[in-house]
Amino acid sequence: MEFRPSEFMARVRSSVPLVHHITNYVTVNDCANICICAGGSPVMTDGPDTAEMVGISSSTVLNIGTLNPRTVDSMAVAADAARGRIPIVLDPVGAGATTYRTETAQMLMSRHPDVIKGNAGEIGVLSGAGGDVRGVDSAGSDDAADATVELARKAGCVVASTGKVDYVSDGSILLELSNGSDMLGMVSGTGCMVSSVVGCYVGACGADVMSVAAAITAFNVASERAAGDSRGPGTFKPALMDALHSLNGEELDSAARWRVL
Amino acid sequence: MEFRPSEFMARVRSSVPLVHHITNYVTVNDCANICICAGGSPVMTDGPDTAEMVGISSSTVLNIGTLNPRTVDSMAVAADAARGRIPIVLDPVGAGATTYRTETAQMLMSRHPDVIKGNAGEIGVLSGAGGDVRGVDSAGSDDAADATVELARKAGCVVASTGKVDYVSDGSILLELSNGSDMLGMVSGTGCMVSSVVGCYVGACGADVMSVAAAITAFNVASERAAGDSRGPGTFKPALMDALHSLNGEELDSAARWRVL
Amino acid sequence: MEFRPSEFMARVRSSVPLVHHITNYVTVNDCANICICAGGSPVMTDGPDTAEMVGISSSTVLNIGTLNPRTVDSMAVAADAARGRIPIVLDPVGAGATTYRTETAQMLMSRHPDVIKGNAGEIGVLSGAGGDVRGVDSAGSDDAADATVELARKAGCVVASTGKVDYVSDGSILLELSNGSDMLGMVSGTGCMVSSVVGCYVGACGADVMSVAAAITAFNVASERAAGDSRGPGTFKPALMDALHSLNGEELDSAARWRVL
Repeated sequence: MEFRPSEFMARVRSSVPLVHHITNYVTVNDCANICICAGGSPVMTDGPDTAEMVGISSSTVLNIGTLNPRTVDSMAVAADAARGRIPIVLDPVGAGATTYRTETAQMLMSRHPDVIKGNAGEIGVLSGAGGDVRGVDSAGSDDAADATVELARKAGCVVASTGKVDYVSDGSILLELSNGSDMLGMVSGTGCMVSSVVGCYVGACGADVMSVAAAITAFNVASERAAGDSRGPGTFKPALMDALHSLNGEELDSAARWRVL
Repeated sequence: MEFRPSEFMARVRSSVPLVHHITNYVTVNDCANICICAGGSPVMTDGPDTAEMVGISSSTVLNIGTLNPRTVDSMAVAADAARGRIPIVLDPVGAGATTYRTETAQMLMSRHPDVIKGNAGEIGVLSGAGGDVRGVDSAGSDDAADATVELARKAGCVVASTGKVDYVSDGSILLELSNGSDMLGMVSGTGCMVSSVVGCYVGACGADVMSVAAAITAFNVASERAAGDSRGPGTFKPALMDALHSLNGEELDSAARWRVL
Repeated sequence: MEFRPSEFMARVRSSVPLVHHITNYVTVNDCANICICAGGSPVMTDGPDTAEMVGISSSTVLNIGTLNPRTVDSMAVAADAARGRIPIVLDPVGAGATTYRTETAQMLMSRHPDVIKGNAGEIGVLSGAGGDVRGVDSAGSDDAADATVELARKAGCVVASTGKVDYVSDGSILLELSNGSDMLGMVSGTGCMVSSVVGCYVGACGADVMSVAAAITAFNVASERAAGDSRGPGTFKPALMDALHSLNGEELDSAARWRVL
């Protein structure tokens, strides 16, 4: 099996997918900027023009990091407008932490997302295997790889579970990805940013295990570069943007650490 | 004809105008910070105290980057509270991309803004000349200069169209401004930031072609400095803030590139 | 009397308090990131799951920087869920600037916050002594120390008034804190960030004069370091994050400038 993330990156950069987001108000600016640095073009709309904007987009990213009844309704509208036409990426932020978040994640799962990207705790909760979610952060999961496969089968889509090691599965293939930096845990919204990068990759290349794995790998390799170019969490974030924007295809492929499980 | 943007900058810095904003939740923090760096003092209110806050402000900036019925109503309230008393700056983000955005922009145009600042696509759409808007980004306009003059006449206000080259007109004078950096296109919200800087300048100096042109020129000259001080889109944004904050009047005047068309 | 802020910092870092926020959409991302850099874990929820999220948190920070009826209701819910169980920190942003803000601050004061942290103008207004608030920025107060004690007695809680010099009181003790940098006034949201850091410290150490003073001192000492590591307001903000994250206990104690009044 071969995996050249640079091939996916090249397709994103040449096609500049328009990535619609309904995301939380905490990290939305970072999502917009990382989307540009990944090669996409972000647009955020959660008002009455949601369906129309989804209609001109290449993918939609639904992130439940901050919810209210109005935006939950808009996410359902976005999913319905996208389904069968463009990829839907669901980031179930904080599923398991409160009933409302868990139920909203399940409501959106019932609308057939193409990708679910969460941390190990969230994926554990949604898979039914159990997981520990503290606020919106994962407190870990004993068996993230199994939960990833389990949720992929249950939801019938690609699932990515992120943490020190990341797992991506469509229910048959299971990939383990092991790039990244500890600094990612020191900045709010790096998980949200990954989902936006996934939105770019599946918008340009279609939603399958390899495009999702390429997105995560590009982001994580950029984080390794950025950690060396910064002095703490504050300077790490702009360095991460710079690193993803300037990432070279050959560097990316040679730095990628992955294996099939 | 003379144009010394430093004279406008000095008035902004000495009077520190309070600039009310109703703007999108994607780039609102950058708008607040660039407003400070430009010499103003930002305040964001879109709740029941909108009219009261507008009543103590020097200008109001209405940016339709993310809309919902509540904030659209608040923008109408802000415009009505401001009209005839302080300058209203309208940034019609994404007009042309969806019906709701186009109609909201037109509703606000009917409330007599003093300045409309958009990208070439948005100004083309609103002028009636046509323009291409992809999400919230301009896909260009064949004839941005003509559309700028046309919209200024139609709306009876100052219009600025930004892009590789910027145009500002009040329907009789037409200025072409050609400072700026390609990096501005790599960061989300640089168009929103320009509108906030325009809010500072018209709040301190009144809404006319020259004050708007001075605001855009100061921002663009700062972007040129910042491009030399950064390594990518991530580090460009803080460098842009620094550069605008420390911009020297003589440097600004000697770097300014403009002509009357 | 002894004051070693490093002892409080060590307890925050070892316990990693979960700090719930309902805060404004302008500076929310900076609040989340400074919270991490202070040693806490931020979570933002203002929807139907507010009470449930407060129920698993160590403190709640209620910041009225941008208000609408829905979020005002959520703040009341959060306060009621927190009262008597975890510390409530109120940041009355812009109280005094509009009636709605003043009334919302008073409504939340009636719900018994454990800490009120504002600028000198806001504290002056709420104390009844009077204060000058311009937008959301303080235009100063003649007698910030007196107003701090007065409001602490009136509200029956710890009160902190920030400015060039900061005051913290519980109605009997009054501390004056004099660390900080002028750069804090050049960045939007540094007051909001202080409140988030206070949320971390009171979440980990309980709400009293010394834990609040330790939080403010840690933030202000970090700002002094950051001012030396940056070239303007843009680069100051990431440097502030870095500096707080890497702050050393001995450095903190030796840099702390305080006295009992």
